[in-house]
Amino acid sequence: MIGRLNHVAIAVPDLEAAAAKYRDTLGAKVNPPQDEPDHGVTVVFIELPNTKIELLYPLGENSPIQGFLDKNPSGGIHHMCFEVEDILAARDTLKATGARVLGTGEPKIGAHGKPVLFLHPKDFNGCLIELEQV
Amino acid sequence: MIGRLNHVAIAVPDLEAAAAKYRDTLGAKVNPPQDEPDHGVTVVFIELPNTKIELLYPLGENSPIQGFLDKNPSGGIHHMCFEVEDILAARDTLKATGARVLGTGEPKIGAHGKPVLFLHPKDFNGCLIELEQV
Repeated sequence: MIGRLNHVAIAVPDLEAAAAKYRDTLGAKVNPPQDEPDHGVTVVFIELPNTKIELLYPLGENSPIQGFLDKNPSGGIHHMCFEVEDILAARDTLKATGARVLGTGEPKIGAHGKPVLFLHPKDFNGCLIELEQV
Repeated sequence: MIGRLNHVAIAVPDLEAAAAKYRDTLGAKVNPPQDEPDHGVTVVFIELPNTKIELLYPLGENSPIQGFLDKNPSGGIHHMCFEVEDILAARDTLKATGARVLGTGEPKIGAHGKPVLFLHPKDFNGCLIELEQV
């Protein structure tokens, strides 16, 4: 079912400092920050040859990553995103196995303009998993 | 400097259950477990089209991931591994910027038989980063 690893998302307490680390220290290709008000985050995409890293920083007062940063003030890996061909088929297969889909279970439009769903970390070894239809 | 994301490593409290989740629930290609006594882990490699997931389970009494699992009993993402062309050049560049290399600073031979180094999570937004020379 799952295809490519689309990205690894890292929540960071200082977006400019984190972007500079990847650009200047690790020598990666770092894009400018972009606000995603619908998702409550500002995102910096880092392009690697085979996948992306997404730096996430809270935007607005009810950012979904604020709680994570409160618990992990230095930042940390927030989620992994796997690509799927058909997100509704993937959801139904997962639910049939007992895996919990977060929220209403209806896909939302993600940061790349494509339908996404999140799976409960307790069902996947403590890892928050995003599925993105590509 | 950094190239491909070689793998994302996930520490898990039950290797067979975690492998089954990726194989049966997420439909990924999951390889048989292999013991890495030099690294104190048993590893299951999951092959995605563009990168790998490595499930890590403690092996022996002084496994380097036991402490992580004690703090995260459900498991969690333990580290990310980026490929570099020249690990000594990468190390020296990183040290010159003040980034801390774990251990002696001399590369060890990693799970793939290639030289690896780990960077201090506090220098990289709470993320443990492995560099692997390819």
